[in-house]
Amino acid sequence: MFESAEIGHRIDRKDYKQREPELRAALLDAQYALLAQAKRPLVILVNGVDGAGKGETVNLFNEWMDPRHIRTEAFGPWSEDERQRPEMFRFWQVLPAKGRIGILFGSWYTDPILAHVMGQEKKARFGQRLEEIRQFERMLVAEGTVLVKFWFHLSKPAARDRFRMLERDPKNAWRVTKDDWERFKHYDEFITVCEHALRKTSTGEAPWLVVEGADPAYRSLTAGQHLLHALQAAVGEAPKADAAAVAVPPAAIDGKTLLASFDYTRALPRKKYENELESLQARLANLSRDPRLARHSLVVVFEGMDAGGKGSTIRRVTQALDARHYRVVPVAAPTDEERAQPYLWRFWRHVPRLGHTAIFDRSWYGRVLVERVEKFCSEADWMRGYDEINSFEEQLARAGAIVVKFWMAITPDEQLRRFEERKATPHKHFKITDEDWRNRKKWPLYERAVGDMVDRTSSDVAPWHIVGSDDKLFSRIEVLRHLCERIEVTIGNGAHQGRK
Amino acid sequence: MFESAEIGHRIDRKDYKQREPELRAALLDAQYALLAQAKRPLVILVNGVDGAGKGETVNLFNEWMDPRHIRTEAFGPWSEDERQRPEMFRFWQVLPAKGRIGILFGSWYTDPILAHVMGQEKKARFGQRLEEIRQFERMLVAEGTVLVKFWFHLSKPAARDRFRMLERDPKNAWRVTKDDWERFKHYDEFITVCEHALRKTSTGEAPWLVVEGADPAYRSLTAGQHLLHALQAAVGEAPKADAAAVAVPPAAIDGKTLLASFDYTRALPRKKYENELESLQARLANLSRDPRLARHSLVVVFEGMDAGGKGSTIRRVTQALDARHYRVVPVAAPTDEERAQPYLWRFWRHVPRLGHTAIFDRSWYGRVLVERVEKFCSEADWMRGYDEINSFEEQLARAGAIVVKFWMAITPDEQLRRFEERKATPHKHFKITDEDWRNRKKWPLYERAVGDMVDRTSSDVAPWHIVGSDDKLFSRIEVLRHLCERIEVTIGNGAHQGRK
Repeated sequence: MFESAEIGHRIDRKDYKQREPELRAALLDAQYALLAQAKRPLVILVNGVDGAGKGETVNLFNEWMDPRHIRTEAFGPWSEDERQRPEMFRFWQVLPAKGRIGILFGSWYTDPILAHVMGQEKKARFGQRLEEIRQFERMLVAEGTVLVKFWFHLSKPAARDRFRMLERDPKNAWRVTKDDWERFKHYDEFITVCEHALRKTSTGEAPWLVVEGADPAYRSLTAGQHLLHALQAAVGEAPKADAAAVAVPPAAIDGKTLLASFDYTRALPRKKYENELESLQARLANLSRDPRLARHSLVVVFEGMDAGGKGSTIRRVTQALDARHYRVVPVAAPTDEERAQPYLWRFWRHVPRLGHTAIFDRSWYGRVLVERVEKFCSEADWMRGYDEINSFEEQLARAGAIVVKFWMAITPDEQLRRFEERKATPHKHFKITDEDWRNRKKWPLYERAVGDMVDRTSSDVAPWHIVGSDDKLFSRIEVLRHLCERIEVTIGNGAHQGRK
Repeated sequence: MFESAEIGHRIDRKDYKQREPELRAALLDAQYALLAQAKRPLVILVNGVDGAGKGETVNLFNEWMDPRHIRTEAFGPWSEDERQRPEMFRFWQVLPAKGRIGILFGSWYTDPILAHVMGQEKKARFGQRLEEIRQFERMLVAEGTVLVKFWFHLSKPAARDRFRMLERDPKNAWRVTKDDWERFKHYDEFITVCEHALRKTSTGEAPWLVVEGADPAYRSLTAGQHLLHALQAAVGEAPKADAAAVAVPPAAIDGKTLLASFDYTRALPRKKYENELESLQARLANLSRDPRLARHSLVVVFEGMDAGGKGSTIRRVTQALDARHYRVVPVAAPTDEERAQPYLWRFWRHVPRLGHTAIFDRSWYGRVLVERVEKFCSEADWMRGYDEINSFEEQLARAGAIVVKFWMAITPDEQLRRFEERKATPHKHFKITDEDWRNRKKWPLYERAVGDMVDRTSSDVAPWHIVGSDDKLFSRIEVLRHLCERIEVTIGNGAHQGRK
């Protein structure tokens, strides 16, 4: 969930000063429109990492808008009175009325997450509570509530830096307590649990908005933009939200994306490549014949911009495999038969049995990439797609599949170079079409879609591997190594026992 | 879930013969329209009690419609091939294409229910699987699938009768196996688990349709009507289902309702009433002061037709309680403030703390009674209401509340008598308004709504008690006795330990 919020988003102070008054005026306008219509309440959840600017943002929202129509609630330990009622009682008491704004500082997520991190509640109960939250939020949205869920994030080094910086500043030193440092020690466990909670509750109708918190200017403007976006969607709409009326979060205001922030300079000399290729292919060949792997299947996904090197990499992988046990599934436009079925049907057909490998050359991620960018489906469709994909991959993993996903990342310059080369090389002509040139023009849209995709579908059981592929030799080796490592880790952890 | 399917629904063979050809023709028309539009697939799930006519209905559907466009699938033990993939794999393989009909005889419910009944899977895992089913079905509906979920039901005595009857008939004796009788021994456990599964997965967008299976004519016509209804809704609609396009199940074709089938003749002589009243009020007074009850709260709901005796019964209850510890919450039209909030908000405000009692004179059931009948909310709103109410009451129970719900059931004749009496008695004038007369005209609509309500919201933790109230004395005693018994059972089972 946090990949795009660890790339050092920031904007100039000057830029902030220029844009802030406009944002502020627009927010105030939208707030009054919400109030005048009095048809929908707005609930803002403020959650995140300590030190990521939650408090500052809450204050800012109150400053930017008319605080008379905003009710900010912070939740401490349960009072005796609250403890004697169902958990959700305290939240029901503070829901804002139609037309009004409620800012919940800490929310219905805080307690389940802490109880699980502290080991007071096991995974099953945690899952159940997240499920109850999904249903609760679904009800709120069906009843017309606009729900904006903020997660303010800091990477581990950024969190450490932030605490140190505050401590050095006499005016702010009080903000950092011993408890903060104590909690910081558990950063990794905490983030793992939060990441799971966010992924499980990031639904089409109430997605999480993750905001990188390190740079105050970026954080404030971004949070304000998200809020404005949701508010404007709310006041422009019918009184009741419907499934199709999802407010898609706007692009990052500093224009920085996960892909653009990636290091594309890594390369490998051919000699070294050849040695490594040989040894990795041997390693993979052995692994693929390891009896422990017979109780698993292998599902490998290749995605990437055109000319990212998917095909040639797949060949390097399959060279190590036994043709009786793998299948490459090239995914192009759906057939008529596939079009007559729910979206994921065409991929379920190719789910391999245990001991077998399916390699997808493009995949179900088309839903949140090409279908999103080309508007082949509605916003609501691809917004719910993340959740459906996560569920699909979880089911695969639970049934014994090792799910490995690669994004073959290249720069626009390298793509252009490869396109030109294809044009100039007769036997590569077939590899370049007008459509490739058209897609290239939509690079920024794809880049944004890829960022959202990685954020929302990189999970413990099916993480994304972004592979810098400007150098083909480097990327092939990376892919082979990753693949071997994922297999080794999984079979090393004991073979899957099958479903029954 | 099964209350309305245990009241002996039946129709004449003659009536059946008259109505069947028309139904059949309409079904065929609708099937062809579905096929011609080729926009939505129809999935029919066939589940239920052994002997309730599942197989017969599946055959009939194939006979009534054009079987070339229907694919019927039965699911036996998992094949080796299926076992090596995720559970849902086998179901994905047989989903019908747009325009087509798939009948799934046994379904994604069968395995979770059996695994839990057999004790192979614990409650937590069972809950998780039901949750996955909810999400899967939600995806199907979002993708345009029309989902018709049938449960064919037989009460325990009806199941026994049915087996015996089949055995006596040489032509059908083969249908009853030793296994059937073996399974019949576990009828109660099986039904408890199924009831839970159905309630948990009866959502606004994919509600269960429970059909009483004892009378073949009733069963067949009812199933056919349900199917026709769903088909017609599907072909009249936009290609994608939206939350508001729920097909509300039609009324029972024999006109028989849960309320109309109730025994209203029970009465109590005044002398006996007075003795019992005294002793029950004393019992309740003692219970309400029992220290074990201090770790619980008591939430009592009174619903019923106008003049059902709610008010006078509530007084008999409160006479036994300490005024410092109970509150009667009369529920009328919502205030402005309440109208500006999600529907359940006005009830959450009155959730009592531990050791306290809240008595609701009408309640959150207004959503599925008056709001449904008077069309104060959309169909989608009250259809999702059952689920939201179940979740609300579960939360109450989990936090220590004893939830007791009474439906004060009177006949239309008795209501009329009471209305006339109120009109004729000066000091009762205020109790009768024009609205009461208007509501009375809608008796059949309310009767149907009450049947659905009891079916869909009577749960282990919050069962409905239908109390025959034509005789006021009898009904007051019934209510007091029930209330005492529920409290005794609960505190006898050990006091609730509070949330934390």
